[in-house]
Order: sequence, then C-alpha cells, then structure tokens
Amino acid sequence: MSDVFSALGDPTRLAVVERLARGPASVSDLSAPFDMAGPSFLKHLRVLEAAHIVTSEKSGRVRTVQLSPEALGWVERWLTEHRRGWEHRLDTLGQFLEQGNN
Amino acid sequence: MSDVFSALGDPTRLAVVERLARGPASVSDLSAPFDMAGPSFLKHLRVLEAAHIVTSEKSGRVRTVQLSPEALGWVERWLTEHRRGWEHRLDTLGQFLEQGNN
Repeated sequence: MSDVFSALGDPTRLAVVERLARGPASVSDLSAPFDMAGPSFLKHLRVLEAAHIVTSEKSGRVRTVQLSPEALGWVERWLTEHRRGWEHRLDTLGQFLEQGNN
Repeated sequence: MSDVFSALGDPTRLAVVERLARGPASVSDLSAPFDMAGPSFLKHLRVLEAAHIVTSEKSGRVRTVQLSPEALGWVERWLTEHRRGWEHRLDTLGQFLEQGNN
C-alpha cells in the first residue's frame, strides 16, 4: 500500500491519474500538458504501472493508458479500514461530551 | 495533495498513520515497533507533520502525536472527486452493454 501512495506522491504522476480518472488516453495525449522529455515522462508511467495503478496496451503505434479498475479501490479500502477506528474515537469523544452536558 | 501521498508513501510512515488511526500515542510508544535510531524515526514524524497529516504536543518530557482530523478527509475528498468520473465511465459502459442486450 505504501508503494501505491508513493507512486501517487509526485505532482506529475498525480496529474496523470487525475486525467485518467476521466478516461483512457494515449501516451502522447497524456504527456502533452507536461514540459518534460519523453523518456522522463515514460519513467513516471512505468512507476504507475509497477504500482498497478495504470495499465497500458499497444495497438499499432499508439500506446493507450488507463486507470486500473482496482487502483482507487485499494485507496478506498485502506481509508475505510482506518477511518472506522478514527470515527469510532470521535464518536466516543462525542458521547463523552454529551454525557458531560446532561 | 501529492505531498500528502508522498508522506504516506513510506512503510514506516504508513504504519505510524495506521497506528495513530487507533488513537494518539507518545513518540516513544510510536517508535517502539521499529528497529530504527531515534533521529531517523523523528525525521519520519517531521515529514508527516510537514504534510499536516499528524500534529504533536509536548507536555513535560512526553511528546504526544495524533492524526490531524483533516488528514484522512483530504484523501477521502480527493478520492470522491476522482471516483465520480471513474464510476460515471463504468456506468456509461454498463448502459451501453445493457442497450446491446435489449
């Protein structure tokens, strides 16, 4: 899970993921907004692929990248799991404060 | 937001956040499970503080660390925002497939 967060912990890669949340895109379309050499951009894509956040497919000369369906699910499950403990603590605090007021 | 993900993108820091999701802890309790020199552990805590994921307070000789209430909220909002587009695409695909079946 820290690999997933680490992969998202870079402004370029995060922007790529945000773009892909709107739909698949070719590598050249994806790289267009970034003032970055091709090989540097491909390195970022490889980090996202290694963390299983994106998958890509080559058809002819065009490589299309898409968000892995599991990717956001992992982050969501991690959050749900740890939010439960966090909210439970806030609930307990709320009950404590309520009892103090009655 | 990439700073938040980057701060979570390290196994030690992620474990600290997971521990703090169960409640505040002293620095010495937090560091106990890690086979790491004190200064190295404090560096990790400083990264989490700089990303506003945790806050800490010193009382006497004990520094207590807790999860910032906003921390998981940020991750959650980012997810909600980008999941919407993602789910919308899945819905559109679902509708398309359903229409194909009718």
